Amino acid sequence: MLVSHIISNRMRAVDLIRKKRDSGEHSREEIDFLVAGYTRGDIPDYQMAAWLMAVWIRGLGPAETAALTEAMLHSGEVVDHSYLPMKKVDKHSTGGVGDKTSLVLAPVVAAGGLAVPMISGRGLGHTGGTLDKLEAIPGFNTSLTLADFRRVLNECGMGLIGQTAEIAPADRKIYALRDATSTVENIGLICASIMSKKLAEGIDALVLDVKTGSGAFMSREEDAVRLAEVMVDTARRTGKKAVALLTDMGQPLGRMAGHSNEVIESIDILRGKGPADLCELSVELSAWMFYLGERTKSVEEGRRLAEEMILSGKALDRFRQCIRLQGGNERVIDDPSLLPMAKSQAHVTSAKSGFITSTRCRDFGVALAVLGGGREKKEDRIDPGVGLEFHKRVGDKVEAGEKLVTIQYNSEAKLAEAKNLVAAAFEIGNVAASAPPLIKRIIGG
Amino acid sequence: MLVSHIISNRMRAVDLIRKKRDSGEHSREEIDFLVAGYTRGDIPDYQMAAWLMAVWIRGLGPAETAALTEAMLHSGEVVDHSYLPMKKVDKHSTGGVGDKTSLVLAPVVAAGGLAVPMISGRGLGHTGGTLDKLEAIPGFNTSLTLADFRRVLNECGMGLIGQTAEIAPADRKIYALRDATSTVENIGLICASIMSKKLAEGIDALVLDVKTGSGAFMSREEDAVRLAEVMVDTARRTGKKAVALLTDMGQPLGRMAGHSNEVIESIDILRGKGPADLCELSVELSAWMFYLGERTKSVEEGRRLAEEMILSGKALDRFRQCIRLQGGNERVIDDPSLLPMAKSQAHVTSAKSGFITSTRCRDFGVALAVLGGGREKKEDRIDPGVGLEFHKRVGDKVEAGEKLVTIQYNSEAKLAEAKNLVAAAFEIGNVAASAPPLIKRIIGG
Repeated sequence: MLVSHIISNRMRAVDLIRKKRDSGEHSREEIDFLVAGYTRGDIPDYQMAAWLMAVWIRGLGPAETAALTEAMLHSGEVVDHSYLPMKKVDKHSTGGVGDKTSLVLAPVVAAGGLAVPMISGRGLGHTGGTLDKLEAIPGFNTSLTLADFRRVLNECGMGLIGQTAEIAPADRKIYALRDATSTVENIGLICASIMSKKLAEGIDALVLDVKTGSGAFMSREEDAVRLAEVMVDTARRTGKKAVALLTDMGQPLGRMAGHSNEVIESIDILRGKGPADLCELSVELSAWMFYLGERTKSVEEGRRLAEEMILSGKALDRFRQCIRLQGGNERVIDDPSLLPMAKSQAHVTSAKSGFITSTRCRDFGVALAVLGGGREKKEDRIDPGVGLEFHKRVGDKVEAGEKLVTIQYNSEAKLAEAKNLVAAAFEIGNVAASAPPLIKRIIGG
Repeated sequence: MLVSHIISNRMRAVDLIRKKRDSGEHSREEIDFLVAGYTRGDIPDYQMAAWLMAVWIRGLGPAETAALTEAMLHSGEVVDHSYLPMKKVDKHSTGGVGDKTSLVLAPVVAAGGLAVPMISGRGLGHTGGTLDKLEAIPGFNTSLTLADFRRVLNECGMGLIGQTAEIAPADRKIYALRDATSTVENIGLICASIMSKKLAEGIDALVLDVKTGSGAFMSREEDAVRLAEVMVDTARRTGKKAVALLTDMGQPLGRMAGHSNEVIESIDILRGKGPADLCELSVELSAWMFYLGERTKSVEEGRRLAEEMILSGKALDRFRQCIRLQGGNERVIDDPSLLPMAKSQAHVTSAKSGFITSTRCRDFGVALAVLGGGREKKEDRIDPGVGLEFHKRVGDKVEAGEKLVTIQYNSEAKLAEAKNLVAAAFEIGNVAASAPPLIKRIIGG
């Protein structure tokens, strides 16, 4: 092995694996070599897998993370939206339970005069995905060609599609490998995966909603803060404006989880109704998008603009228009019964009286997946009609026998397991606890 | 991902990778699952590669190492030598430069009344391999069938072959993957690789020669000690007698390196001639084999028996017989010119006067490989005729212009690089330094 170092100076994957294994720092050229070689198929899965595990354990520095992001970004096409006269902005959430803000803020921000060319993902494990939620709307097509996507954006200022084959192919290949090799939860790799896709959208600015707490992908706050910092840093290194909001996922966002359920609740928010937490976060994220997209001079002004778009009905009109342009049945806006709904309902009631002090929020997502409203594997099909409706939040008083959650389900066999998970996910104490603030920190603002 | 943990309790590679990634300790069942699944092809290379990197960084405990060794051992056949009435013993060296003791001690120990069913490896990188050395003898066949191997053993008490397809197939597959993923140098993995093959030989006792110093695979003494301890522990956990000699590889063993060269020097030792260091170590290893194989009541008695086998010519007769039985030209014993030899010779001389204080011994091995007498990749062919003859050892006085090494070479192009490596590998100081003791420690004796 030493021989080869002497005989040849050519770059070799095996040496780069060794370097990272031994906690070395990669140059940009080394990362380009790995990503391009792996995407082309010159570097086999097993070498990439070993490198990914070394990266998972040893970590990536800020410059390495930015280099990895850009290498993955340039493994495919960067979408050109220069035909749109306004600034292009987007939001990315690290995911959680009941997080449907994308369905609210895209119409709000588009109605307010910016473009939102949103390329989203699907749910996996306990978290939901924007594409799956939109597909609960009969006919809604999230697989537009880039030409059709541009047409939709040109007409209504927003569009919501899935990752296309042209965008960051390295990420698709690397993510599948990470999933099979337990190398998913690493800040540098997560950042590069998210940011390579988001930067490929051809946007000017990005607002990041980084979740923390029991329902978040990264439950420890220090991990979430680091991820937020690394993503903001990476965005800026590539010349984009970015901010991250660190937000609480210690309990579901809003009252609804499940695909049809979340479309309904999003429409409620766009009508100026709906739960306060979801409304607050949607407005806040929209406000930052307006500000970073230079539509408003301040975040405060952005908030007012977001509220105006909701109260005037302009945001809801924009959502209706987008549904129609993407092939969906826009009548769901006025008639939610057009959305697929589960056949049966059951209730989880409280075993004792007291105050809700916390929830194991992730288990609500797992329960939803158990009911059929989530995926274990990428290939799994989702039942959009099943769902959870939360009647109580952290801080609420509850009586023994009082309803905590209504479960909408299609299979009795799966109900029992979901009920157990949901019932066990509530911590009920004797002393009233106040819920933590929804927006915990602004990072890079 | 969490979903699957709840829905199913079946063992999955991805969960075992995660466990080791997070510094967990595997059960025997988990290791059996990984090794059997990988050998069958149910677990893909990329999952094994990620697990190997996690193991490399997090390590394996003694029980895990023994479990891995046994799982790899039982991935194939354990050779049955019960037809032989005497005890079966073997030696394994972790490899170095000029280490030809196997060619000496196998005939010595066979002549002394034990059986030595030696299954050996090939050289890689800077280290030589016993099989390659034997193949310098015209006609010598190291690829016997197990039936022919048994016949040779039955006739002369020794036999030297390469790993067969039946023996520890898991090791072959795992080693190839480790080589491509920079996960070779890990004590638990090295131990399992060595011991699974050695235990498959059907032996009663094993003497380990663990090298340390600048020409060893593990240059740091503490690593070599740990490897020795783990291998002795693993042998005993599987019911075998074992001892490890920690020996110095801070300079080449004997005066000769290169394949034909080392056969010649081995024959010298079997004639009672040859350099003192090589003779001492060959006798010491043979003595431990006699003792552990219950042929003698003490190591001291074993030493006397080994010396007697050399001085009486019985060991050399046994070597001659083995060469014949394995298809080789036994006349090489009396006529070394029958061995392939390089066309040309050149000398490396000392640039200054002084004392040799140390050597970068690995670089001698690299120089030999550069000349064609080593492998970068498993597929590479070896030139058995090239070699190095060392005229000076650590502690020796040297004058400016005096010969340090004679290089036997076939390619002018390669000579220059080899010369530079060899010349730079000697440290020459003003004060006489004594060489470290050849045998540094006995572990498990």
